[in-house]
Amino acid sequence: MTRFRASAPLTTDWKHFGFTVSGPVATVTFNRPEKLNPLTFSSYADLRDLLSELPYHEQVKVLVIQGEGRGFCGGGDVNEIIGELIKMKAGELMRFTKMTGDVIRAMRECPVPIVVKIQGVAAGAGAVIALAADFRVVGRSGRFAFLFTKVGLSGGDMGAAYLLPRVVGLGRATSLLMLGDTIDAETADRYGLVSQLTDDEGLDAAVTALAGRLATGPSLALAQTKSLLTRELDMSLSSSMELDAMTQALLMTTDDHAEFHAAFNAGRRPNWKGQ
Amino acid sequence: MTRFRASAPLTTDWKHFGFTVSGPVATVTFNRPEKLNPLTFSSYADLRDLLSELPYHEQVKVLVIQGEGRGFCGGGDVNEIIGELIKMKAGELMRFTKMTGDVIRAMRECPVPIVVKIQGVAAGAGAVIALAADFRVVGRSGRFAFLFTKVGLSGGDMGAAYLLPRVVGLGRATSLLMLGDTIDAETADRYGLVSQLTDDEGLDAAVTALAGRLATGPSLALAQTKSLLTRELDMSLSSSMELDAMTQALLMTTDDHAEFHAAFNAGRRPNWKGQ
Amino acid sequence: MTRFRASAPLTTDWKHFGFTVSGPVATVTFNRPEKLNPLTFSSYADLRDLLSELPYHEQVKVLVIQGEGRGFCGGGDVNEIIGELIKMKAGELMRFTKMTGDVIRAMRECPVPIVVKIQGVAAGAGAVIALAADFRVVGRSGRFAFLFTKVGLSGGDMGAAYLLPRVVGLGRATSLLMLGDTIDAETADRYGLVSQLTDDEGLDAAVTALAGRLATGPSLALAQTKSLLTRELDMSLSSSMELDAMTQALLMTTDDHAEFHAAFNAGRRPNWKGQ
Repeated sequence: MTRFRASAPLTTDWKHFGFTVSGPVATVTFNRPEKLNPLTFSSYADLRDLLSELPYHEQVKVLVIQGEGRGFCGGGDVNEIIGELIKMKAGELMRFTKMTGDVIRAMRECPVPIVVKIQGVAAGAGAVIALAADFRVVGRSGRFAFLFTKVGLSGGDMGAAYLLPRVVGLGRATSLLMLGDTIDAETADRYGLVSQLTDDEGLDAAVTALAGRLATGPSLALAQTKSLLTRELDMSLSSSMELDAMTQALLMTTDDHAEFHAAFNAGRRPNWKGQ
Repeated sequence: MTRFRASAPLTTDWKHFGFTVSGPVATVTFNRPEKLNPLTFSSYADLRDLLSELPYHEQVKVLVIQGEGRGFCGGGDVNEIIGELIKMKAGELMRFTKMTGDVIRAMRECPVPIVVKIQGVAAGAGAVIALAADFRVVGRSGRFAFLFTKVGLSGGDMGAAYLLPRVVGLGRATSLLMLGDTIDAETADRYGLVSQLTDDEGLDAAVTALAGRLATGPSLALAQTKSLLTRELDMSLSSSMELDAMTQALLMTTDDHAEFHAAFNAGRRPNWKGQ
Repeated sequence: MTRFRASAPLTTDWKHFGFTVSGPVATVTFNRPEKLNPLTFSSYADLRDLLSELPYHEQVKVLVIQGEGRGFCGGGDVNEIIGELIKMKAGELMRFTKMTGDVIRAMRECPVPIVVKIQGVAAGAGAVIALAADFRVVGRSGRFAFLFTKVGLSGGDMGAAYLLPRVVGLGRATSLLMLGDTIDAETADRYGLVSQLTDDEGLDAAVTALAGRLATGPSLALAQTKSLLTRELDMSLSSSMELDAMTQALLMTTDDHAEFHAAFNAGRRPNWKGQ
């Protein structure tokens, strides 16, 4: 993909969260654990910009999002965000809410698979970021709260009213978004909101293993699988069939598909190249 | 909303079910328990009309729908409805089926949250009314039967083929609608069709508590959450994001959002005004 | 329906799977158990053609799809299919992938209810065929593997990225399609992917009973229920209501609906005619 970069440089210094790249695994770390890793105007903007740049980091094959300390992310800070919002007028409010939505849309449209690690609370915007990820690896201490109505706002923040019914069904989504109650990790797992449930002690290892597996997988095939999952929620059966047929025909011409066949017949594991 | 009423009076006498308003809680009671509270031509029409008037009852913040006696609602009465339908011609049949669909659509589009109380059977149209509510509070005696194929009709009655897969998934919806079998409360809960499962003895208290909680909540935020959940089933990700952003920006200007902030900083509970 | 056949004959000899008709029950049997009943270019083409002819077999009311031996279907054969695909160019690849999608679309659009019997593995295209059926009767030995990324291809093969999230939710579908891991029958049941879970010893009897029940049901009502379930995944609430209303009004004029009423009042079981 990097062939198609021209003048714009990649950002090297993200000031509003930790960002590291270790081999194929990029990691965003919300790092204000003393306040439960709140989102701020600046961290939303950094997330939006990072997600648009990430596909151009040629070596990055998977993104992990995590929070330091006892919780994943408590959402927007009451005073740093809400205290400011209640002073704003229409134009500025719209720019803010569209920015937050852009983060979620970028997560869904980004070709890089996204894994979130959840220990403790994922609340408000933190819960929606978890919801928009491809994989939620959740420790038993994990809990989710789509608490927007508790602050007098719509439960459908940042796409939650679109995404949550498609993950847990309309009935459960209605309860979660209208009441804003907290659910624990086991309930979330039963609802289909958890990709992998682990003991808290095993959480880091589970995230590392999953990220490693995605990072060494056939990245073009994984990216297109994610793309189809995202797009076909909005497409008809017959159009989806057509998109699938064209995608698969194209992937059948890739080195990775041929590599599978060669590896299978040689009795060895495939060595994926992502092309 | 009542500012926008002009000449049309509100109906004061509903003849085909019980209707009471107690503070912010309106209650519809199907009250022919000797026949399992059947729906009739007239009770459908009354439901349709009530649901269109309800948003103009300024004090009403939540609607409870319940049935007297050992069951919630057995659906359309075999002789009072089916006996008449088999004599009708196309025009009248269409007017009937469109009316029943209008009831369900009005339930989904009504800004007032709707809670159904289910003890015993919710069958046929009774099951679809339960399905279209926002919250299903279900006693352990509760059971659901989408039994339309058993009377020789389509399982997709009154929107069931649209709604049920979005609540329980396509596989389970196919079994329920094609076979018409009865499922008990625990199975329905496992499927995601139950919002709250209780002992029958605690059912009334659970409904009262939930209705009270919704009634004293931030009603504008709750109404918009319901609206987004309903509308975004039919919208794309990117359009949903735009609707969410505009909705949330508007709600950020409301008294209720400012009240949350003031209450939070004062260490007290918010006093919602619904505006 | 047979009134609307003209010159084209029905195929009498299907060479690439077993095909039998016993009364109202048609059965397709994948019959190369020594290779886990692989799909081949020819068996895809036969399935596509059979599904388009099946509605014109007047006596057939239900289709069972099964596999001989210890598994249902292992998907496309590595050498018979993949070995050939990697030599093909764009036009031929597209013709292949469109054909496989046509099979799945025909399964969803076919008015005849489809039951699959799953013992052992349903993998790759075998898993998608199971997914596209109306009913999955699964023995405890059953397992599902949407293993496409493991061969370097998109997990969204043959509509899987459209169908699976609508059956098990987006979160679980993402894990299944991106990772390609195998899930056992109990996990699949918990996810909503199983219509009926049985011991392996009872599997044949369960399939026979379900097929018999569907075969003796009100076939027009069942066909329209399936049609609404399929179509309304792609329709809005209000359009679905209109389709439901018209469908139901039409079915209210059928002999089967009148037969229900007569049978009910006579205290006997209805004798469905499918018209």
